Amino acid sequence: MPSKNRKKKAHPVRVARAAKKKEDIYLPEHDLAAVCERVIDKVRPDEREVWKERQGIEKLLLKMRALIPREIEIELAGSMAKGTNLRGTMEFDIFMLFPTHYSLKDLEVLGLEWAKKSVEPHKWHIGYAEHPYLNAKVGNADVDIVPSFKIMAAEEMQSSVDRSQLHTRYILQNMSDRQKDEVRLLKQFMKSVGAYGAELRIEGFSGYLCELLILHYGSFKNLVETAATWQRPVIDIERHYGGQELGPKFPEPMIVVDPVDRRRNVAAAVSRTTLSKFIVGAQSLLKNPSEEKFFPKKIVGEKERLKHAISGRETELVGLIFSAPKAVPDVLWPQLRRAANCISKQLTMNGFSLISSEFWSDEKKKCALLFELEVHLLPSVVKVNGPEVHFDRQVENFMEAHKASARKIWVEDARIVALEGRKFRDAAGLIRHIARNPENYGISRNLQQYVRRGRLARGEALLSVIPLEVMHRFLLGEEL
Amino acid sequence: MPSKNRKKKAHPVRVARAAKKKEDIYLPEHDLAAVCERVIDKVRPDEREVWKERQGIEKLLLKMRALIPREIEIELAGSMAKGTNLRGTMEFDIFMLFPTHYSLKDLEVLGLEWAKKSVEPHKWHIGYAEHPYLNAKVGNADVDIVPSFKIMAAEEMQSSVDRSQLHTRYILQNMSDRQKDEVRLLKQFMKSVGAYGAELRIEGFSGYLCELLILHYGSFKNLVETAATWQRPVIDIERHYGGQELGPKFPEPMIVVDPVDRRRNVAAAVSRTTLSKFIVGAQSLLKNPSEEKFFPKKIVGEKERLKHAISGRETELVGLIFSAPKAVPDVLWPQLRRAANCISKQLTMNGFSLISSEFWSDEKKKCALLFELEVHLLPSVVKVNGPEVHFDRQVENFMEAHKASARKIWVEDARIVALEGRKFRDAAGLIRHIARNPENYGISRNLQQYVRRGRLARGEALLSVIPLEVMHRFLLGEEL
Repeated sequence: MPSKNRKKKAHPVRVARAAKKKEDIYLPEHDLAAVCERVIDKVRPDEREVWKERQGIEKLLLKMRALIPREIEIELAGSMAKGTNLRGTMEFDIFMLFPTHYSLKDLEVLGLEWAKKSVEPHKWHIGYAEHPYLNAKVGNADVDIVPSFKIMAAEEMQSSVDRSQLHTRYILQNMSDRQKDEVRLLKQFMKSVGAYGAELRIEGFSGYLCELLILHYGSFKNLVETAATWQRPVIDIERHYGGQELGPKFPEPMIVVDPVDRRRNVAAAVSRTTLSKFIVGAQSLLKNPSEEKFFPKKIVGEKERLKHAISGRETELVGLIFSAPKAVPDVLWPQLRRAANCISKQLTMNGFSLISSEFWSDEKKKCALLFELEVHLLPSVVKVNGPEVHFDRQVENFMEAHKASARKIWVEDARIVALEGRKFRDAAGLIRHIARNPENYGISRNLQQYVRRGRLARGEALLSVIPLEVMHRFLLGEEL
Repeated sequence: MPSKNRKKKAHPVRVARAAKKKEDIYLPEHDLAAVCERVIDKVRPDEREVWKERQGIEKLLLKMRALIPREIEIELAGSMAKGTNLRGTMEFDIFMLFPTHYSLKDLEVLGLEWAKKSVEPHKWHIGYAEHPYLNAKVGNADVDIVPSFKIMAAEEMQSSVDRSQLHTRYILQNMSDRQKDEVRLLKQFMKSVGAYGAELRIEGFSGYLCELLILHYGSFKNLVETAATWQRPVIDIERHYGGQELGPKFPEPMIVVDPVDRRRNVAAAVSRTTLSKFIVGAQSLLKNPSEEKFFPKKIVGEKERLKHAISGRETELVGLIFSAPKAVPDVLWPQLRRAANCISKQLTMNGFSLISSEFWSDEKKKCALLFELEVHLLPSVVKVNGPEVHFDRQVENFMEAHKASARKIWVEDARIVALEGRKFRDAAGLIRHIARNPENYGISRNLQQYVRRGRLARGEALLSVIPLEVMHRFLLGEEL
């Protein structure tokens, strides 16, 4: 750990002073390095447990090997293969690597056929990423069997599924065992600040992105110290772009160039909010390191406490509840996010002021869009600012447009101003109107029919419709 | 009128086309030139009436001449002397011009003594501008007798009172009789749009400013056509600054360099709002010229109509009513304006949204500050935007400041946000608080004790406290 080494070389008097100052901030039990070691011990998988599950997988691999032609390689991939998985996470990815003289059809038909035969009599189902794969439960382990093409470089890729094998190889070739533990530490921390997972519900950091961050910064501590000051991080480990300005090339708030594919930003899924959560988390951890920051208490929404919060604030809480459409999570969540944003924008444009909005689904039956409003009732009139008076033609148009209907027209400073009738006086009424006419407000086509049949719930009534821990996060936030 | 002359010289076919087009816009009875002529006939003083009043003044001047040493000149000044007064406005300014070997004390003691003796047995009182003058009613005429020093150029000025004689001489030397009528027309129009008068209640156009505008543009029509497109007008009739950029030299929204004193902006009193009123008025007059635009119907506030407006809007109307301090109007009005602005700013800063504010006084007994609010009740919490997360130290400070008291802290986009308790939930409560502690909110010292003893009136109750025509203007605006 570089900063510790630096301290060892320092002048003894200065060390004494530094130590005194350090004591003011970090109590001994709060030392970041010590905290990290204790956390690593807790998140590193139990050897015996792994060994047991691994035996089941070895059997599965032998069975596959017997079934499948020699020229098709079988490769263990994913975090288990890379040795960066968290304790209790038993996920095996098995890739069947077809030579490229096979067709995509072969992969889908032959590949899945062999996969099914290999896992039987265990239960399985077919999942779909860019193309289909098989998922099965083998003992306690969750196994994905993924047919793909064998490639040696990103240029040969036929779908993004093929890239995974390159990632596995890159990490295995470049990462030390110590760093694998640091990746586990980072993943656990990311989980704790709510930033782990590239799925579109979270818009967070993928496992592979965590691995690359540790490779680049060397250690968790180094990463966290830098992240505390991040603005728009740009990382290009293999220097594919030789230091050239990457800001204009990638539009996302964080850029990490894939070492095995220069065209890809591994951090593309990370939203500004999620990035900010990690940055704030890093700052908070540095200021006051503790194990609890890696293992936050699970939020238990207490109904009484939430009721109290709702009645005490005197804000307006409105939820639009509707049935979940048939869509995989990575399609559903962006649509929900978009719908929440569209409605928020309309609320603001109509003069209501929003504290925050949220979206939620159980991914099966129910979806909800939630809004907490500071101002939810408005008078029957609205002040409309007109043009500056010297824009002759515009002034005329404004007068023309308002003269008949305005309750008052006057001059304020350099502008014409009109007091007009207001269309929506009640925020809930506006939300209801949008729900009835979703096609006019940019709600995704797939959601429209569900939103149209949705219903509003307000205030405490929401507590019996939405899971309490979701309401807790919405009303009381998270530990920062 | 220049544009008429241009038309006479045009090609016959083009004239025909232009005429057709003109007909679409201006009906014959709406022709601006014709309207102007009719208005001039109405605002030019009645010769017989003037002659009668003038006889009284001639007698007064003879009496003064007999009382006062020869070396002190007596000069008729003001709009009567310049021939730019409106019908029914019988205001005579008589200047006693002392040679500069007299002292200021002589002006005040001897000057006022002679003035009193001259007007007796008519009633008189002493008024104060920069130094004292005598005001008397002589027949129907309102006479000001002003002792000042005789000067020939602005550099010799001892107070701004001395400048008036230069203004009178400049106008008399430079203005044609036709232009004097155009000045009357302009004054009448300025009155009608609520922009006439340099007093600080109106922040408008003085008589001298109207005269200069006609001198510069030649005619009312020319002025109005230009004013419709004004942004920040700069006029320097005598080219004192030889075309140099005057924007940075004078801070006001309109600049008219005094021909007799290059250091003075004659339009300094014109506020942006008043300037805008004139510009909008000019646009409206050009679009649809009519006599009514010079003689607007006097607003008669109808109680029932105002009650209806108040209950129909569902806005909140709050008035702070207090006794008038002892102060001349030009001191009182800026203090009222300032107080209304200070309270408006506080309302906005505390999250209430304002439609408009107004201030009023009868200049003797009562003052009022009026506020119409779009949002006047807020929840018990307020959303506080924190710093962007990458400003390490600021984030820490924000967290420190809010951690204990916040009802919620969360990350939104690139910022930390906190939900805090709100201090003022009710706009009227905030206004009451400011009224009780005026010294903390920038209310002028002279008003503080009166404001402190003020009381609030809300909604319809205001209709029995404030004159109905003031409430009418506040609630329903003016004809634009």
